[in-house]
Amino acid sequence: MKHLRKELWFNTPHRRDYINITPDVEKAVAESGVREGLCLVNAMHITASVYINDAESGLIADYDDWLEKLAPFNPGSDPAKSGYRHNRSGEDNADAHLKRQIMGRQVVIAITDGQLDFGPWEQIYYAEFDGRRRKRALIKIIGE
Amino acid sequence: MKHLRKELWFNTPHRRDYINITPDVEKAVAESGVREGLCLVNAMHITASVYINDAESGLIADYDDWLEKLAPFNPGSDPAKSGYRHNRSGEDNADAHLKRQIMGRQVVIAITDGQLDFGPWEQIYYAEFDGRRRKRALIKIIGE
Amino acid sequence: MKHLRKELWFNTPHRRDYINITPDVEKAVAESGVREGLCLVNAMHITASVYINDAESGLIADYDDWLEKLAPFNPGSDPAKSGYRHNRSGEDNADAHLKRQIMGRQVVIAITDGQLDFGPWEQIYYAEFDGRRRKRALIKIIGE
Repeated sequence: MKHLRKELWFNTPHRRDYINITPDVEKAVAESGVREGLCLVNAMHITASVYINDAESGLIADYDDWLEKLAPFNPGSDPAKSGYRHNRSGEDNADAHLKRQIMGRQVVIAITDGQLDFGPWEQIYYAEFDGRRRKRALIKIIGE
Repeated sequence: MKHLRKELWFNTPHRRDYINITPDVEKAVAESGVREGLCLVNAMHITASVYINDAESGLIADYDDWLEKLAPFNPGSDPAKSGYRHNRSGEDNADAHLKRQIMGRQVVIAITDGQLDFGPWEQIYYAEFDGRRRKRALIKIIGE
Repeated sequence: MKHLRKELWFNTPHRRDYINITPDVEKAVAESGVREGLCLVNAMHITASVYINDAESGLIADYDDWLEKLAPFNPGSDPAKSGYRHNRSGEDNADAHLKRQIMGRQVVIAITDGQLDFGPWEQIYYAEFDGRRRKRALIKIIGE
């Protein structure tokens, strides 16, 4: 069994950002020498996601609006005023923990003939919901 | 290490449909000859999901209503009228990209003693949110 | 290839509970003897989740409120009164099937150097949405 581990580091300019990491994952698959196997990609932080969807800026803006509607940013510390209990602890990122559950922590991708085994429009994104600091994602590949 | 790759093709009659693919995945596990390993099943399209839940028609109707409430179909191209930016590009399926994030892209299932290692009610579904055209899911099995 | 299978059993005191199972999964990884591989942890029931996020009681209360807002408990059997069709069948847990889709069925975790390969705050939770009865999660580890 072959295996490879690699970290990708980010320091996004905004609180929320969406970064296409497909080329980085493709590069890791090539480096691994794995022809048949599985590739796990996950956020190593709990206020960020790794997901697979379209590289289309309109859709990304739709995701951002939709997530803000489902789990609004609200840095207030008073739950009686629709604040989050988590933000009582001095944090302001409760919404980011919620948004991350919608978009997911990880993706698992088949490797076939040494390539990511993708449908026509699949692209891998790192979604940051509490950025402007150094954070990372993990790539782990196993196979033969 | 043994491995198997298989595609399942769909062309659903409605925009949204929910198809139980458990027998197809069981068949692929049997064909693979894998006794101990992992089975990945994922949508290869970004407006569809693979998820595990109950084979109960009432629940499936509840999912469909709920997803439509969380991410309404709205083919309008004017975001000022609650449309989606993605639909400005000539698409009408932004809602399908959102619904798919709730239900998820993939499932990973343990294989034990040559069988899907399932609890009592687990069934695998392909959920189509923008159907009426040929689309597919991927099964990838690795193990020994 | 090495592999290990292990079940974790629960009988939660409340309908909804959130249990940190990180130590149990760490123990399973140690028992498996796997140094490099993948660890799958999934709910074996379709009204429960396994997810990775923070071990912070305020956040867990926020999750619980948020899930109840997105998918309210409503044991009524009349869909015309905002009930769920699933609950017509004599069940009262349709909301639990919905909540579980938000939080997810499974996590897949890299194993590196014989350890769960985690970022600084990642903790594994079993989330119960229809408890007060015996239910279980599955750990499946493969690697070498």
